[in-house]
Amino acid sequence: MTSHTTAYSDLKTATAQQVRAAIRTRAYNGHTSGLAAGKLQCNLAILPERYALDFLRFCQRNPKPCPVVGVSDSGDPFLPTLGADIDIRSDVSKYRVFKDGALTDEVDDINALWADDFVTVALGCSFTFENALARNGIPVRHMETGRNVPMYRSNIDLMPAGPFAGKMVVTMRPIPAHQVDQAREISARYPQAHGAPIGIGDPANIGIGDLSQPDWGDAVEVKDGEVPVYWACGVTPQNVLLDAKLPLCITHSPGHMLIADVAEDAETTILPLKK
Amino acid sequence: MTSHTTAYSDLKTATAQQVRAAIRTRAYNGHTSGLAAGKLQCNLAILPERYALDFLRFCQRNPKPCPVVGVSDSGDPFLPTLGADIDIRSDVSKYRVFKDGALTDEVDDINALWADDFVTVALGCSFTFENALARNGIPVRHMETGRNVPMYRSNIDLMPAGPFAGKMVVTMRPIPAHQVDQAREISARYPQAHGAPIGIGDPANIGIGDLSQPDWGDAVEVKDGEVPVYWACGVTPQNVLLDAKLPLCITHSPGHMLIADVAEDAETTILPLKK
Repeated sequence: MTSHTTAYSDLKTATAQQVRAAIRTRAYNGHTSGLAAGKLQCNLAILPERYALDFLRFCQRNPKPCPVVGVSDSGDPFLPTLGADIDIRSDVSKYRVFKDGALTDEVDDINALWADDFVTVALGCSFTFENALARNGIPVRHMETGRNVPMYRSNIDLMPAGPFAGKMVVTMRPIPAHQVDQAREISARYPQAHGAPIGIGDPANIGIGDLSQPDWGDAVEVKDGEVPVYWACGVTPQNVLLDAKLPLCITHSPGHMLIADVAEDAETTILPLKK
Repeated sequence: MTSHTTAYSDLKTATAQQVRAAIRTRAYNGHTSGLAAGKLQCNLAILPERYALDFLRFCQRNPKPCPVVGVSDSGDPFLPTLGADIDIRSDVSKYRVFKDGALTDEVDDINALWADDFVTVALGCSFTFENALARNGIPVRHMETGRNVPMYRSNIDLMPAGPFAGKMVVTMRPIPAHQVDQAREISARYPQAHGAPIGIGDPANIGIGDLSQPDWGDAVEVKDGEVPVYWACGVTPQNVLLDAKLPLCITHSPGHMLIADVAEDAETTILPLKK
């Protein structure tokens, strides 16, 4: 088995399947931002079946932070509706393992942890609409500066379901004032990727004290003439899972997403059945 | 208690809450097409909790026929994300009861049948995009002629989940050839209501033998210059539930939908939490 022999730059033009293969063989274990352009990237939540119904209800009730794009059968590590060969035990470059609400491990694969009652829930991710913003000439500061998007715990209540509840995590992107409407309109086309912004302007309106102190990710500059724009964030479900103190659950590590074969602008996130 | 004292015409300008109140008090027990204009109407599936996870997986994998717009807590007859006062035991004008895969009863309310393990799944309905088509000057034949939309069993395989599988049921609307692209574009804006068409033209392409012989609903004329256009249909999940031969499940009767307080063109189908 090779070990991290592939650099990010080697994968810039690789297909989704090639990136997953590099990850699966441990040739690559980096972040996936900008890889397999045009393909859907996914946040992950893997949890015991007995929590899956409540978690799906939670996601249904909070579709902006938690847009479900794929759900596995119980105990089945494959996700055929997202990609023919996806093995969720190995096809993500970094996983986080949570036990009783605490991060206990960060690992390259979860083969040893896999259990017969695990259900994988794949959720849409902001990369999808960020690519669309960039394609349409709207600057995305953290991409330009090679940083992780700044994320903040807001005061926006989530709709609860079973043990899952809490506040929405949001991302912030500074957008030139004259492009805010366009950014809203473009992102609204991607309900599978958090959709339209959930807030614009003063961070205090959604309970954020200081934009220069994100709870996760890296701070970015808001320049003159720019407005901070907030979107629902896929860290929300990770946070909610943590707060629910499940005996065991597994997520991707931030930035290390599952790359699907589904086009990010497809009408649905479901690949057709193979005949 | 009054009994069917309210006519359809009395409710033409009523709000969603007024229509539900008329249904709940048995003042009205008719169909809901065209009522509470602008509000989301829903197909219903009520089933024991032990089947709910598989059914939600089935819906997630078949989002065009089965767009989930609301899910109740187990045993809870209320659906606060769709309407503050919705009581699913009484707020639909006609229900169908299925036992072991057979229709055993059609009833005005399900108070006597309600069980502590029931989960209600509300699914989007074609009324939403039909209203949008009509608003945009695209004729909808069965609405013009006061009929039920023609529905057909297609040969399109559904993505299975647990006991749920089968073929997609589709609706057909004859659309003037020059308006087909517009009809596609308009309906695509409503993923919560079956989205874009799943087929256009020759019915044989999707396994329909004779358009004049629908499997459900009423045949409508396809005039010269019109093209038959097919959309995924909310009867699909009803059919799939029937085929799965659950010991017990309950649906609305065709045309007798749940009317929500959610606007049919809202970005999500979730009402915000009341403070």
